[in-house]
Amino acid sequence: MSEDWKVVAEKLAADLRADAVERERIGAEPFNEVDRLRKSGLLTLLVPSERGGWGAGWSAVNEVTRIVAAADASVGHLLGYHFLQLWRTRLFDRPDELERLERATTTENWFWAGVSNPLDAALQLTPVPGGLRVDGTKTFATGTSVADRLVVSGVRTDTEAKVTFTIDARADGISYPDGWDNLGQRLTASGAITFNEAYISDGEVLGATDDEAPGAVLRSLAALGFQLMLTQVAVGIAEGALAEAADYTRTRSRGWTPSGVAAAVEDPYALAGYGEWAARTRAARALADEAAAQLWSAFEAGVDLGAEQRGEAAVAIASAKIVASRLATEVASGVFEFTGARSTSNAVGLDRFWRNARTLTLHDPVSHKAREVGDHVLTGAYPTPSGYS
Amino acid sequence: MSEDWKVVAEKLAADLRADAVERERIGAEPFNEVDRLRKSGLLTLLVPSERGGWGAGWSAVNEVTRIVAAADASVGHLLGYHFLQLWRTRLFDRPDELERLERATTTENWFWAGVSNPLDAALQLTPVPGGLRVDGTKTFATGTSVADRLVVSGVRTDTEAKVTFTIDARADGISYPDGWDNLGQRLTASGAITFNEAYISDGEVLGATDDEAPGAVLRSLAALGFQLMLTQVAVGIAEGALAEAADYTRTRSRGWTPSGVAAAVEDPYALAGYGEWAARTRAARALADEAAAQLWSAFEAGVDLGAEQRGEAAVAIASAKIVASRLATEVASGVFEFTGARSTSNAVGLDRFWRNARTLTLHDPVSHKAREVGDHVLTGAYPTPSGYS
Amino acid sequence: MSEDWKVVAEKLAADLRADAVERERIGAEPFNEVDRLRKSGLLTLLVPSERGGWGAGWSAVNEVTRIVAAADASVGHLLGYHFLQLWRTRLFDRPDELERLERATTTENWFWAGVSNPLDAALQLTPVPGGLRVDGTKTFATGTSVADRLVVSGVRTDTEAKVTFTIDARADGISYPDGWDNLGQRLTASGAITFNEAYISDGEVLGATDDEAPGAVLRSLAALGFQLMLTQVAVGIAEGALAEAADYTRTRSRGWTPSGVAAAVEDPYALAGYGEWAARTRAARALADEAAAQLWSAFEAGVDLGAEQRGEAAVAIASAKIVASRLATEVASGVFEFTGARSTSNAVGLDRFWRNARTLTLHDPVSHKAREVGDHVLTGAYPTPSGYS
Amino acid sequence: MSEDWKVVAEKLAADLRADAVERERIGAEPFNEVDRLRKSGLLTLLVPSERGGWGAGWSAVNEVTRIVAAADASVGHLLGYHFLQLWRTRLFDRPDELERLERATTTENWFWAGVSNPLDAALQLTPVPGGLRVDGTKTFATGTSVADRLVVSGVRTDTEAKVTFTIDARADGISYPDGWDNLGQRLTASGAITFNEAYISDGEVLGATDDEAPGAVLRSLAALGFQLMLTQVAVGIAEGALAEAADYTRTRSRGWTPSGVAAAVEDPYALAGYGEWAARTRAARALADEAAAQLWSAFEAGVDLGAEQRGEAAVAIASAKIVASRLATEVASGVFEFTGARSTSNAVGLDRFWRNARTLTLHDPVSHKAREVGDHVLTGAYPTPSGYS
Repeated sequence: MSEDWKVVAEKLAADLRADAVERERIGAEPFNEVDRLRKSGLLTLLVPSERGGWGAGWSAVNEVTRIVAAADASVGHLLGYHFLQLWRTRLFDRPDELERLERATTTENWFWAGVSNPLDAALQLTPVPGGLRVDGTKTFATGTSVADRLVVSGVRTDTEAKVTFTIDARADGISYPDGWDNLGQRLTASGAITFNEAYISDGEVLGATDDEAPGAVLRSLAALGFQLMLTQVAVGIAEGALAEAADYTRTRSRGWTPSGVAAAVEDPYALAGYGEWAARTRAARALADEAAAQLWSAFEAGVDLGAEQRGEAAVAIASAKIVASRLATEVASGVFEFTGARSTSNAVGLDRFWRNARTLTLHDPVSHKAREVGDHVLTGAYPTPSGYS
Repeated sequence: MSEDWKVVAEKLAADLRADAVERERIGAEPFNEVDRLRKSGLLTLLVPSERGGWGAGWSAVNEVTRIVAAADASVGHLLGYHFLQLWRTRLFDRPDELERLERATTTENWFWAGVSNPLDAALQLTPVPGGLRVDGTKTFATGTSVADRLVVSGVRTDTEAKVTFTIDARADGISYPDGWDNLGQRLTASGAITFNEAYISDGEVLGATDDEAPGAVLRSLAALGFQLMLTQVAVGIAEGALAEAADYTRTRSRGWTPSGVAAAVEDPYALAGYGEWAARTRAARALADEAAAQLWSAFEAGVDLGAEQRGEAAVAIASAKIVASRLATEVASGVFEFTGARSTSNAVGLDRFWRNARTLTLHDPVSHKAREVGDHVLTGAYPTPSGYS
Repeated sequence: MSEDWKVVAEKLAADLRADAVERERIGAEPFNEVDRLRKSGLLTLLVPSERGGWGAGWSAVNEVTRIVAAADASVGHLLGYHFLQLWRTRLFDRPDELERLERATTTENWFWAGVSNPLDAALQLTPVPGGLRVDGTKTFATGTSVADRLVVSGVRTDTEAKVTFTIDARADGISYPDGWDNLGQRLTASGAITFNEAYISDGEVLGATDDEAPGAVLRSLAALGFQLMLTQVAVGIAEGALAEAADYTRTRSRGWTPSGVAAAVEDPYALAGYGEWAARTRAARALADEAAAQLWSAFEAGVDLGAEQRGEAAVAIASAKIVASRLATEVASGVFEFTGARSTSNAVGLDRFWRNARTLTLHDPVSHKAREVGDHVLTGAYPTPSGYS
Repeated sequence: MSEDWKVVAEKLAADLRADAVERERIGAEPFNEVDRLRKSGLLTLLVPSERGGWGAGWSAVNEVTRIVAAADASVGHLLGYHFLQLWRTRLFDRPDELERLERATTTENWFWAGVSNPLDAALQLTPVPGGLRVDGTKTFATGTSVADRLVVSGVRTDTEAKVTFTIDARADGISYPDGWDNLGQRLTASGAITFNEAYISDGEVLGATDDEAPGAVLRSLAALGFQLMLTQVAVGIAEGALAEAADYTRTRSRGWTPSGVAAAVEDPYALAGYGEWAARTRAARALADEAAAQLWSAFEAGVDLGAEQRGEAAVAIASAKIVASRLATEVASGVFEFTGARSTSNAVGLDRFWRNARTLTLHDPVSHKAREVGDHVLTGAYPTPSGYS
């Protein structure tokens, strides 16, 4: 299937773009959107071809996320996290279960999501015959309410070990108590999830996450994967805002005639303004690509992955996230200066880029991310692996 | 009544702030808001005390606009323009009519608005016995659909003179064809107004606007007044965003514990961030005050106002508008970094400041305003009087 | 002498501007510059007229500092500090000594400087019959090596009280060990001063600085005065950079013909660029004026000055300093974009504005100043009085 | 020789860094520096191995330029242009002459420079028996006065064709009339060059530059090469400023104790500040790498290079230059906030990064470059090939 994924992604993006304004205004749970993802066939992009997938690589996954996010940042977010969750299962030493999950992803066309907000209290995992009982609530559980399969972490009540497992998103005991009514990323279903006497079998446990057994550094890549996907969505938002605004300026904006500018596309400030934004957006994307390559290299090092290589990837991803986060918010607000007063009509919907960027980039604070990078610059220290680094 | 206006304004602001999020989400025509303005008594702030008003001065009008705009930028906008339209009538040599209008403003508690978008085709004024017939449509006619009295400009079909007059906002032939559904300044009723065989009497004509008769420079101050009021609303938005965000950070935000910050109010980046925004906001306000003083001085020069004094006021106002416009948009977007992810909930409504700033500051392009100021710096030229300068 | 000080200041500024590039390149100890200050007559600007001075007020002192700093930031710095040191003596309850010092300033045409770097170890004041022996070294002792009279603080070895006194800058035991060879503010003589068994009489002691006796809050205004003067110099640098660059663009820059721009003064980016800088510079100045007014009000409250009024002045001055510091550095670097490649010739000397701004604004860190302002915004706390706040 | 070039470049950089402050203060003609370049062996980096060079590729050339520029931006500039001039000869269809020049570069260890300022009047090329006489003056002729061999363009007096040739930099009739005394890039020997009856043989003519014969698009890549090299030097300056400032902060700066910060490397604002700068610098470098790859691809397309591929490379390079130019100037000024007041001592020399960035980035105006990129964003047009695009 070679490079067809790009064509497919662009077709999906065009389809999403066509009714993006309308869909996000309504703000329904994104079942429709997940359905479109299923129909696109892209959910199996990372699944090896021998297990029925596209067998595409990491850079494809990153680019597809960006392409879709440029059209609809919520759907790009859902898709990026889907890839991420499925990839996460490879960090554990469960080749059999991995095969089962990847095959099921193909045959069932599973959409994945996950539960991992490190700021909430950990889910409680109580040993029961043949498995674990799961209890607790997590907020910001992006995509879970519309997913088929979840990757979840919790803490065993007996050993206090942090354990990661997968679970059917529709299993008994799982509910989605409150909706997600936020100003941006409205179609990401990022509300809470509650586990009330949900059960998993021992076979669904992927492994312990925080032990110091071989592969611990490898398993700690999960957090970097999330940071990278957030970065790609942010880059996508910047690209989308720029493209849609440029289209508006080109086709609908008026020249500022009181200043003698006949057409909007000849306005010197619009020209230089778009040029500056486009240049910064290219730089953000180039750095995101570089960071993605580093994460993949670290992943390929496998159980022997060392702290230094992991640290270099962490610094690269943190850098890319800082740049993309600042950019996405600024460009999404700034482009209005070149689309003009009439572009603030709600019928245009150009504000969704800012609302999406503003919401997305608060996932964790940019300044504290910058602090980590600065610490590396000044002292050589690498970010301490955590839920965010 | 001395300085009581400040107390009254702050009370009105508190009242508006209480349900600002709810009201602007609904986005009804702002009859309720105009009603609150009427009840506050502030509509007569500029009316001389001998005609039943507060007899307050220009700086009071500017500060009241800012105080109200900080709580509800739409209402601040409506109020600032109300003051402005009433003040505009003084630019013409019609003391008798001025007295009538000011007295009626007191007795009827009139709310004023106006029609002046220079980018639309001019309204057509056709001479009829005893007056003029008015035809045409204007967009962005802020406040007109909820106003009692309008200040309107048009062009006589016989002489091609540009003429300014006042008219009952409910007069026959006036309609408000489409609503205003934009992303910000949602309660300003800034849709279109249509005149279809509306009539005014000769007595309602304030005078010609663009002639070269004595007082022409004075009459050209109207455009500067609008620019100044937009500036004050922008400063108010920055102040409001800062105050509401700081309140949120203080009472609801969490410290970023992964970085060892126990409480949000101890976060070094939040502290310095609020400090930088507050410093810039103070500077913007100080400059807006200075610009307001210059406009008032120019106004007080009366019919002898010269081009140089007018020009200095124009440069001061343009400078203040540039600073306030950039600031309002940036601060309203930036404060989210210190309120955090949960503050993006629509129940919080903190995004309205950005939506208001973004909409308001596109009234006319900041870059072209900067161009005018730069031209003065480089060549000494003053902005050519126009609908925007 | 009414407002003549402004004319005198502008004449002095023109005189300084004429050879500013040459003088600062040589970087001699600024005896020549102090001589020009003496000849200008401005050293007695703050001295009451009954004691032979101009009897001008605080706003004159601030404006004169700015006017001179725009032409030569080093000389503006020296002059601002001179005013400041003389004013500081009024914070103590020594009317007799104040009169003596002010009269001597008139008759001797004294140039004042001071010694106060809070980061160095305190000077040691050892009681001796009839006075105190002074020992120790202070760095960044701006202007002292070219001054007549110094205001100095130290700590008594017996009581540990912090004491402020004045001393003849040429007294035995005082030396200036090393020069000042820094990239900016090159003519401020900001090297070190060493006291080695210098003596002062008891009569030269102005009082204790850090006690809790009445007037303690008043005496704590000294640090705010320094912060304000640094702010005024920074505003002056911005104004000077802008004026000199605009003059260069107007008279010497070429239009960017490859882009079809015939003359530099018609370049849309130069026009808008100067406009933005000029607008921000006006805002910084307006805020500096406001802060100066607040400090003067606090001073006039006298020994009854309360912590709240002092705190409000501190926040206003800190805000003004943040804005002016950021601005001065950015504008001094940014203007080159509109003067062009040839303006980097050392013969032009346009870089001195950046070198001055960059050096001046590191006096104490802007981010930590912003932190104080932010703390006030978030918690209502005022900056703790210190050597910097 | 595989990747040894990187080791060699870093060794050269360390050597240059050791006396960079001293050398650039003196500002002698950079014979010493060219000598170090010769001794490093790097001058033949691009020469094919069969002709005695390293046979390294384009990415090596770009990275070496950056590594050297980080240590000494002038020398990086000289070296980058050297590579560029030698590479330019390949754009013409003169394989024999190319071989001769490349072999001579190896055997003679030639240092190359060039003459091409498009804003000056063209050099006059008058046909004489067996060759051309060259007359005229060019400014900003970087490196020529210390070079061995020059690439030069001029206009034939008979055909008005624009022709490119190489010439011995010491040939009769060539002189270097005035020095280069500018605030930055002081060791680039960027003064003027005068040709007064200099002669070249027909064999030294590489070809016509501006004809429409096959390969015209290919030959137009030269200007992009210059833009790319300027970009790499700018990225190098940012990297160098960051590294040297971080070293200073780590080893010499004090914590801001009045704010309770014990050590400079623990200052939250220094940490986040370095983090933000480092992130932006990584992004700029990533984009410069991407742009370099695009230029090389375009070059490899050979005489069949089309306008679209050339245009994409032009937009990529312009974007990279915008980002790098803004960054270099800002980071070089901004790092002082984290090194502190004492770092302004001329003995430290940290200001050279700003002086270099400020001078380098005025080569051609960033805003007009942004205008070109914006034009592509808005209309799809590619920059018109010129001396700058």
